Amino acid sequence: MRTEIASLGEFGLIRHLTEENETRNAGTLLSVGDDAAVIDQFGRQSVISTDMLVEGVHFDLMYTPLKHLGYKAVVVNLSDIYAMMATPTQITLSIAVSNKVSVEALEEFYEGVYAACEKYNVDLIGGDTTTSRSGLIISVTAIGEVAPDKFVTRSGAKPGDLVCVSGDLGSAYLGLQLLEREKKIFLENPGVQPDLQQQSYLVGRILKPEAQMDIVEWLQEKGIMPTSMIDISDGLSSELLHICRASEVGCVLYEDKIPVSDEARPMAMQFNVSVTTCALNGGEDYELLFTVTQEDYEKVSKNGLISVIGYITEAAEGAHLITKGGNKHPLTAQGWNSFG
Amino acid sequence: MRTEIASLGEFGLIRHLTEENETRNAGTLLSVGDDAAVIDQFGRQSVISTDMLVEGVHFDLMYTPLKHLGYKAVVVNLSDIYAMMATPTQITLSIAVSNKVSVEALEEFYEGVYAACEKYNVDLIGGDTTTSRSGLIISVTAIGEVAPDKFVTRSGAKPGDLVCVSGDLGSAYLGLQLLEREKKIFLENPGVQPDLQQQSYLVGRILKPEAQMDIVEWLQEKGIMPTSMIDISDGLSSELLHICRASEVGCVLYEDKIPVSDEARPMAMQFNVSVTTCALNGGEDYELLFTVTQEDYEKVSKNGLISVIGYITEAAEGAHLITKGGNKHPLTAQGWNSFG
Repeated sequence: MRTEIASLGEFGLIRHLTEENETRNAGTLLSVGDDAAVIDQFGRQSVISTDMLVEGVHFDLMYTPLKHLGYKAVVVNLSDIYAMMATPTQITLSIAVSNKVSVEALEEFYEGVYAACEKYNVDLIGGDTTTSRSGLIISVTAIGEVAPDKFVTRSGAKPGDLVCVSGDLGSAYLGLQLLEREKKIFLENPGVQPDLQQQSYLVGRILKPEAQMDIVEWLQEKGIMPTSMIDISDGLSSELLHICRASEVGCVLYEDKIPVSDEARPMAMQFNVSVTTCALNGGEDYELLFTVTQEDYEKVSKNGLISVIGYITEAAEGAHLITKGGNKHPLTAQGWNSFG
Repeated sequence: MRTEIASLGEFGLIRHLTEENETRNAGTLLSVGDDAAVIDQFGRQSVISTDMLVEGVHFDLMYTPLKHLGYKAVVVNLSDIYAMMATPTQITLSIAVSNKVSVEALEEFYEGVYAACEKYNVDLIGGDTTTSRSGLIISVTAIGEVAPDKFVTRSGAKPGDLVCVSGDLGSAYLGLQLLEREKKIFLENPGVQPDLQQQSYLVGRILKPEAQMDIVEWLQEKGIMPTSMIDISDGLSSELLHICRASEVGCVLYEDKIPVSDEARPMAMQFNVSVTTCALNGGEDYELLFTVTQEDYEKVSKNGLISVIGYITEAAEGAHLITKGGNKHPLTAQGWNSFG
């Protein structure tokens, strides 16, 4: 028998391969299936997350400066740690590179890694450097700490909770479309140099994302404990459905509440896509999606960087989007899928 | 300016890229440069190690069963944790695979992963599964625990200490040569099926290595605290020179004390190499190399699995091998190097 990986999809594949996974150590509090794992170490808790980035799948070196790539490789992992309401403290970094890559190119990559470590106050504590037959492969593991049982999973959302999101959505996707378009133009007319200066916000969102340290620190300061949380790497729809599945709830999402940037609207029009579609299915924004109880509404609404975009329902009600025109559509996950 | 990676070599490259690495967190007790890093978590200590395995560089799927590969990918990381005298507790696993790989093939790989987790009592707590353009890439991060300040680094060897090694050396290298020879014969005469049954020990050493859990537990039980320790992934010479450099000492190694298996001797003759060369430069044995003070000589010599193979000297005396004929040769690292 032969089953194609594509028939399961990325999430289906992980579920399939890990469904018989057993944990033996009492210290393993949370295993495969959330943004990060949680391990108990003598009463204190650590949060661990890992991600792999593959050239040609997750990034295109034609338009990705190596320094930005190093920065982003760290940030996307820290984002998973913040999505547990934890504070990242250390990372390990393994890379496989072709012999054709120069030491100077790797230095640039590491400059980006160190810049991210400095900004987020984490230490690079180990790694592995090896040869690859083709392309650059990057694997980062991030470690963080959290006060006992103060971590937030995907599975705690309850009917009536409010759905919140930080920052704005869809810009990273539009930045990527812009880079892909300019690449195509350049390949057809090598004399034409792309001018992306005017779109530095959108391009910056895809090439140099940031993790939501400030949001997590603010929530901690204000004593707001979200009931569930996830980072948006695959698009709002996909992530909200992860929360719904893990929490066994449904949701209602309001299109007119989804935050989008001023730069995203005109660019979405240029690309002839709805800006809402970019937010729902685009991915790579690395904003935080979380739910809070209604008692926290007042506190949360005071933070200009947080938008309340919907609410949690009973599972039987399903997951829906209320459009600007007042129509109700089932929410479907069309997020980016590297096995698609 | 363009510097070739090969001009620095793997260890030179890592040193170069991490020489300006700073640590900011007080909890980071030991960073890049040992078998694993050590982080302090509120007074208790965790040990973290990571490794990447690349198809065509670290393994050849033509003669590596996927189940063994999954087992080995875990074991080589646990070996790094044991080499700190720590106990592994959790791992994360990331893989990049081609779409051409079937789900059933991945299931086999995971069977091996789970078998290693069971044998060594560790939990798989997270990971990432993504597409690769070509070939299988595996990245494992292992986490372990150790009583406060009871971890052992590479840097504590002192003149007069005894150099010890577990098990036997060189067999994994000979197993690999055997597999490579049979592969060549098979490619030239596809009708000929290799018969490796008689060499199951040597072939097993390369395809399904074990980590030295028993040795570490025995040392802990007997209250023997090695002054330095490293696992042998690259060959005895290379690893002993790592200890010498990190500890700022020299060493004398006796050829006739280096443990080799009964299976290795005749096979080395077949391949027309010295069995000592296999032990010194072969690599992938995943035995432990460590130093103890002379007071521990009696205890250590009672363990039939541990050989005392030399002693530590002042750095100025350099690192030497005393041959069976009584000649003194400088020890050089010709270990396996994936950038070679």
